[in-house]
Amino acid sequence: MQAIAEFALPAVADISDAALTARLQHLLDNKTKPLGSLGRLEALALRLGQVLGTDAPALVQPQMLVCAGDHGLAAKGVSAFPSDVTWQMVENFLAGGAAVSVLARQHGLQLTVVDCGVARNVGPHEAPGTTRLLVRKVAPGTADASVGPAMTAAQCRQAIANGMDVVRSLPGNAVLLGEMGIGNTSVASLLLARLAGLPLADVTGAGTGLDAAGIARKRAVLQQALDVNAEATSPLEALAALGGFEVATLVGAVLQAAAERRVIVVDGFITSAAVLVASRLQPAVLQRCVFAHRSGERGHALMLAQMQAEPLLDLGLRLGEGSGAALAWPLLQSACAVLAEMASFASAGVATQTA
Amino acid sequence: MQAIAEFALPAVADISDAALTARLQHLLDNKTKPLGSLGRLEALALRLGQVLGTDAPALVQPQMLVCAGDHGLAAKGVSAFPSDVTWQMVENFLAGGAAVSVLARQHGLQLTVVDCGVARNVGPHEAPGTTRLLVRKVAPGTADASVGPAMTAAQCRQAIANGMDVVRSLPGNAVLLGEMGIGNTSVASLLLARLAGLPLADVTGAGTGLDAAGIARKRAVLQQALDVNAEATSPLEALAALGGFEVATLVGAVLQAAAERRVIVVDGFITSAAVLVASRLQPAVLQRCVFAHRSGERGHALMLAQMQAEPLLDLGLRLGEGSGAALAWPLLQSACAVLAEMASFASAGVATQTA
Repeated sequence: MQAIAEFALPAVADISDAALTARLQHLLDNKTKPLGSLGRLEALALRLGQVLGTDAPALVQPQMLVCAGDHGLAAKGVSAFPSDVTWQMVENFLAGGAAVSVLARQHGLQLTVVDCGVARNVGPHEAPGTTRLLVRKVAPGTADASVGPAMTAAQCRQAIANGMDVVRSLPGNAVLLGEMGIGNTSVASLLLARLAGLPLADVTGAGTGLDAAGIARKRAVLQQALDVNAEATSPLEALAALGGFEVATLVGAVLQAAAERRVIVVDGFITSAAVLVASRLQPAVLQRCVFAHRSGERGHALMLAQMQAEPLLDLGLRLGEGSGAALAWPLLQSACAVLAEMASFASAGVATQTA
Repeated sequence: MQAIAEFALPAVADISDAALTARLQHLLDNKTKPLGSLGRLEALALRLGQVLGTDAPALVQPQMLVCAGDHGLAAKGVSAFPSDVTWQMVENFLAGGAAVSVLARQHGLQLTVVDCGVARNVGPHEAPGTTRLLVRKVAPGTADASVGPAMTAAQCRQAIANGMDVVRSLPGNAVLLGEMGIGNTSVASLLLARLAGLPLADVTGAGTGLDAAGIARKRAVLQQALDVNAEATSPLEALAALGGFEVATLVGAVLQAAAERRVIVVDGFITSAAVLVASRLQPAVLQRCVFAHRSGERGHALMLAQMQAEPLLDLGLRLGEGSGAALAWPLLQSACAVLAEMASFASAGVATQTA
C-alpha cells in the first residue's frame, strides 16, 4: 500500500473563525424569537455560515451525487438482493423512478449518477430533466474482500481521483452524497469495525432486509474479510482492502468538496463511511458536513458518534441513494432563509425579554 | 358551563378503511426500495392517503393558520416577555419578518393570521404577498385564570365557532396550525395538567425563556388557576376556565378541519393543547393529524404521549407560531411524491429480494 500512502490528497484547512461565529450568533440572537428557540436550526445556520465563510450564507445549485459500484463480496450472500439490482437501480435513477430521483426533483437538486464500478455497463442514456450519468468505472466490481483486498492500491487511487474530478466539474456550493451498490452496507460495517476498533456484532445490520440467519451469515463473511486483510489498518489501506469503488469515489468527492468549502450533506450509513475515511485523512472535513439523518441500519449511530455528528432527521430511513440527504435539504434552505429574511427585534419594533 | 356542554360541535367520523390501507401498503411495498426502508415517511404516506381517502393523495393549497390572543394570566409574570409582544408579533407576521412568515413563504403556504383576542387592535393592514389578517376578536384578552375562569361560556363558544368559520372559508385540503400569545404556554400546561391529571411540576416549562425562579413563580400562579377553577373538569369547561381565545379558536378550527377531512399539521406545545381538547371531544380528530415536531418545551413530550403521537422532527424547537409545522411540511410533500412518482419493481424492471 505504499503507493496509496504517497498519494497526494487535497489539503483541507481548518475554517473555524471565532469572529464570524460571533457575528452569526449575534444575528440569530436578535431575530424576533425567544433566544435559541429555533433549536438545532440555529446550529445549522451557524454551520452553513461557517462553511461558506459569510454571515449571509446562500445555497447555490445544489448537486446530488450518487456513486454506484458492485462488490465481489456480494457473491457470498451478504445482501438480501442480487448484484444485478445495482445496474437496474442505476437505470431507475436515470429514468426518474427511484426515491432519490423523486426527491431530487421535488427539491430542485441536480442529480448526477456516477458509475464508479458497476458490474454491467449502463447507457448511453437519454436521461430526463437534469439527471445525467458519468462513467468513471475503475473495474466491473471489486474483488471479493473475504479472500483478499477488494481493490489494488492503483484502483483505490483511481477511484479517489475520479471523485475529486467529478466534484471539480460540478457547479454550485453544496453537494449531497448518495450511493448505490448491492453489498455496500458490508463495506461500511467493515470500515467502521476496522477504523473505530468496534466489534462486528455491533456494526453489522440487516442492510436491505436480511433476516437473523442472513445477518449471522453476513457477519461471518465480514469476519473473514477483516481477518484476511488484517494488515490494512491505515484509513487508505482499509479503504482499498475493504472498500468499494463507489465508497472510494465518495472519499475523493468529500475531500475535494471540503477543500473547495462546499457544504457536504451526508446521507446514511454508506456515505457516512466515506466521510469517516475522509475525516481520518483530513479531520477538518467534518467542519463542512451536515449529517442529514440517523439511519435505521445498525451501526450508523455508532458511526455518527465516531464523528461527533448530530444528524437532523431520525425517521428510521434505511434506503440510501441519498434519499435522507434529499429529505433534509429543505431544512438547510430554511436555516439560510431565517438568517436572511427574519426581522430583528429592532427592525420590527418588537419588545425584548423582560423576565 | 351548561351552555358549553350543549354547544353543537361538528361530528368527526371514524375514517379507518382497512381496504384503502391495504392498497396503500401494497403500493409502498412494490416501490423500488427495500421493504419498509423509507421508515416513518411510509407511515406518513399511509396517513395522508387515509385522511384524503385515496391511494393517490395530493396536497392542495395548504393553509398556515396562526391564531393570536392575549391572556389575563400574563399580568402575573408567567412569561419572559410582556403582553405587548403579542400584537407586535402579529404586525411582524403581516410584515413578513417572523419565522413563520419566512418559512411559509419558502414552502408556498398561504398565511392567515387571526386576531382571536389580542389586547390591542392591529391593522387594517396591507400585508405583502398572500398574508392576511382576519379579525375574530372575542375580547381584548382573557380574564386572569388565576382568580377565576379565563372565559365565559359564551366567549368560549364564540371562539370555537370563529375557528370553525375561519376554516370553512379557507381553500385547500391541508391546514397547518400556529399560534401567538404571550402567556399561552401557561394555558397549554394548565389544559394538560387538568385533562391528563398530570402534576404541574411535570408539565410547566420555561416558555419563551424563564429562568428557574421564573418557572417556580409561573408554577405557583398556575396552581392558583387550577385551584380556583377546580370544578372545570370536562374538556370544554377546562378550555373555558383555563384556555385562551387563540386556543379555543384553534379547537374550533381543528374540529372543522377534521370534519372536512383536511390534513391537520400540528406544531408545538400550544397547538397540541388545542388538539388534545378537540380529541377529547371527538377522538377521530387524531386520525387527521400529522404531528410536526417534539418541542423543547417541557411538557410537550407528555402531551404527545396522551395522543399516542409520534412527531416527525425533534430539533429542540420552542418558538411556536407554526414554525415547526412549516419546517415539517416538505416531508408531507415527499410522502405524496413517493406514492405518486416512484417506480414499482415491475415497472422499472428491478429484481426483488432473494434472501
